[in-house]
Amino acid sequence: MDQVDQVQDDDTLDEEVVLDQPRLKLVRGALEDRDAMALDDLLEPLHGADIADLLEQITEFERQTLIELWSGHIDGEILSELDEGLREEILSSLPAEDVAEAVRELDTDDVVDLIENLDDQSQAGAILGALDDADRVAVERALTFPEYSAGRLMQREVVIAPSFWTVGQAIDYLRSAEELPEQFYHVILTDPRMRPVGHVTLGKILSTAREVPLSDIEEDSFRTFYATDPESEVAYAFNQYHLISAVVVDEDDRLLGVITIDDAMSVLDEEAEEDILRLAGVDSEGSLSDRVLGTVRRRFPWLGVNLITSILASLVIAQFDAVIAEIVALAVLMPIVASMGGNAGTQSLTVAVRALATRDLTGANVWRVIRREVAAGLINGVAFAIVMGIVGVVWFGNPMLGVVIGVAMVINLGVAGLAGVGIPVALEKVGIDPALASGAFVTTVTDVVGFFAFLGLAALWLL
Amino acid sequence: MDQVDQVQDDDTLDEEVVLDQPRLKLVRGALEDRDAMALDDLLEPLHGADIADLLEQITEFERQTLIELWSGHIDGEILSELDEGLREEILSSLPAEDVAEAVRELDTDDVVDLIENLDDQSQAGAILGALDDADRVAVERALTFPEYSAGRLMQREVVIAPSFWTVGQAIDYLRSAEELPEQFYHVILTDPRMRPVGHVTLGKILSTAREVPLSDIEEDSFRTFYATDPESEVAYAFNQYHLISAVVVDEDDRLLGVITIDDAMSVLDEEAEEDILRLAGVDSEGSLSDRVLGTVRRRFPWLGVNLITSILASLVIAQFDAVIAEIVALAVLMPIVASMGGNAGTQSLTVAVRALATRDLTGANVWRVIRREVAAGLINGVAFAIVMGIVGVVWFGNPMLGVVIGVAMVINLGVAGLAGVGIPVALEKVGIDPALASGAFVTTVTDVVGFFAFLGLAALWLL
Repeated sequence: MDQVDQVQDDDTLDEEVVLDQPRLKLVRGALEDRDAMALDDLLEPLHGADIADLLEQITEFERQTLIELWSGHIDGEILSELDEGLREEILSSLPAEDVAEAVRELDTDDVVDLIENLDDQSQAGAILGALDDADRVAVERALTFPEYSAGRLMQREVVIAPSFWTVGQAIDYLRSAEELPEQFYHVILTDPRMRPVGHVTLGKILSTAREVPLSDIEEDSFRTFYATDPESEVAYAFNQYHLISAVVVDEDDRLLGVITIDDAMSVLDEEAEEDILRLAGVDSEGSLSDRVLGTVRRRFPWLGVNLITSILASLVIAQFDAVIAEIVALAVLMPIVASMGGNAGTQSLTVAVRALATRDLTGANVWRVIRREVAAGLINGVAFAIVMGIVGVVWFGNPMLGVVIGVAMVINLGVAGLAGVGIPVALEKVGIDPALASGAFVTTVTDVVGFFAFLGLAALWLL
Repeated sequence: MDQVDQVQDDDTLDEEVVLDQPRLKLVRGALEDRDAMALDDLLEPLHGADIADLLEQITEFERQTLIELWSGHIDGEILSELDEGLREEILSSLPAEDVAEAVRELDTDDVVDLIENLDDQSQAGAILGALDDADRVAVERALTFPEYSAGRLMQREVVIAPSFWTVGQAIDYLRSAEELPEQFYHVILTDPRMRPVGHVTLGKILSTAREVPLSDIEEDSFRTFYATDPESEVAYAFNQYHLISAVVVDEDDRLLGVITIDDAMSVLDEEAEEDILRLAGVDSEGSLSDRVLGTVRRRFPWLGVNLITSILASLVIAQFDAVIAEIVALAVLMPIVASMGGNAGTQSLTVAVRALATRDLTGANVWRVIRREVAAGLINGVAFAIVMGIVGVVWFGNPMLGVVIGVAMVINLGVAGLAGVGIPVALEKVGIDPALASGAFVTTVTDVVGFFAFLGLAALWLL
């Protein structure tokens, strides 16, 4: 490799420093030695998102040292990228003037994102106070829109042009504009009443002759959202229609702002994350940097629900205590039936919850999907009934016990398919997030049905 | 509202037709009546992604009618958006010339996406045969890169400029270019050996005077990927660093193509989906339009694993059959201990699996997270031990039984926290996807420990 190559490679690498374990170790070493210069050399080339990750991964003591040595460099981007819990900790330990300087450089949508979830209202007030008047008004305006709405997501900074302008006029205007958004992908065409009527990609403007009217090169497809539309609608549309940016209007169809794909991407990301955690009964507000007591509090409610449902299942078992006293093998085998039903039910409900979230499961195909899940449950039920029937016979030398466990298995896996789709669909209909509540209902059903079918059949056929 | 408003609203609405239930009903009606004209009126204004969704939601019989009446309109975009399973069904029922026409209009990355998962190799051959030579070579080249690599994800269509050009030269070049990509957001600056050295946003080019050199306005941050980099790395970087497009190079750092945010967004989306489904033991290749037998096959393996683990748990119970025969209350209460442990373990493992996926859980904080999960498990264990102890006493009038279930609960919830983080981390270390396998291991541990602790303590203290 010759000299030129070498220099260029260095240059490229310089831009691409990432947070890896060796660098993290060096940072922790510099913090231990309280070596401000080494710390700055290590942190300075990192992207704000990586510095936020670093802050999340070190201990609280290390964080305090880092803030002491490096607080002047903690900018708005780093604050935006932090976990919500940690953000409050860091905001409260940063000097007020550093916070003010950090937030002033942010776009209004990022400021909104920064303060909308602060528990500490005095922190929010301090941040608002640090903004200049126009930005503060914009942020306060955005905060009047409902949480999780398009109005909270949009940035006020837009690039517009009258729809009768030519390409040349647009370029001249852009060259003379005092301030343009950090990132923009379209010029929005408006009518005289400031209502958006279409948009033109920057690529089209750049590749078209100056005299062509903008209206000749506008995109075929142009989707707008009302400021009050839920952000999940917006994220769905970005994903479904491959949008890059979309316009937000007020109730009179007047332009308010623009939402860009990176905002939509983080909404999608958060929603998938929320679904994953809720399906497992974990509060989606939690984060890895929570402390023990926070974690205890966040896990407790779901475990409480599970305790109640498993006591329900125990009540079913208690009805059959005389049978169990006579045939102890039933106590040995009964968890198998319940557990298989619980697993099959979880499979069906997860598929259903995701299909509801992605709008693949609708009124048009819900009966077909239910039929399919029940049929699949029954067929798998028969397969495992044969296996377990044989296990029952071999283990306990009792053919009828094999039949009982087999039949109970078929019943429970069929019910699991039915409940696994039916319960999330019903919850969605009545306006409850199916990701949040389906699990408890479905496993209650499969536990109760599993124990009841197995012990009930045993009482009928084995005594 | 005056006349002008009316017209404009109609115009706006015209662009924003979406697939809703009323329209879906009308389409099904038109299919039943075999009314080609009504069908075309209903489908023509829909986005390709919505038509793909519609094809997924109607029955197989309706799909065949739709293809008969409307096959000439099924374009490359619709095919790209279809579920993989359905795509093969539809490709095989479309006339060959319609398929050829549909694929010719696609970008090369979309053709790669279309054919890389076709089971039917003759369909892939027919599609390749329909492309013109340059595109076919590009697609075949892309297919030489490993599956799920940056090389498969990139599009060959790029906009480049020598790094010494001015803004004016770039604009003149773009205006005279014969063919430009459908969407592009940056002009990539290259050196004489076609190695990318930086990039400039279109917004900057548009807002800068003609005589300024491109190198003066290039972005600070410029990230490139090797064609062999895994797509998950690419998606992570897009999300972490808020990229809009990124350049792909070969092993000699020469420019090969570009990946845009919409591709990265669908990778992220697929990965979250895969994690959700794998955590529930569902094969992520499946889809809502699978038939019953496909569903049976996809669910079977996980249920099989679950059967083995629950038999393991039963073997533990069987060791204590004499104890159960003496105190039947143990059979009634034992599922509670196991179920609480299973739930607490699932909570911990889901948090851990996601934190591994988002790279928030690393060597730097793994011990802190394990300590926190174990501590949270023990604390919740004590809380529920007290509740269950009281329930045990009240229900069965046996204080020692209350103590046994309480102590077993504390042990199992502590173990659940340990296994919930430790098992996914260990699986990741040895290269197994923690989302896929953690669930089985963790619930086996909590079942075995739960039954063993509860029945073992009962044998020691109650007999």
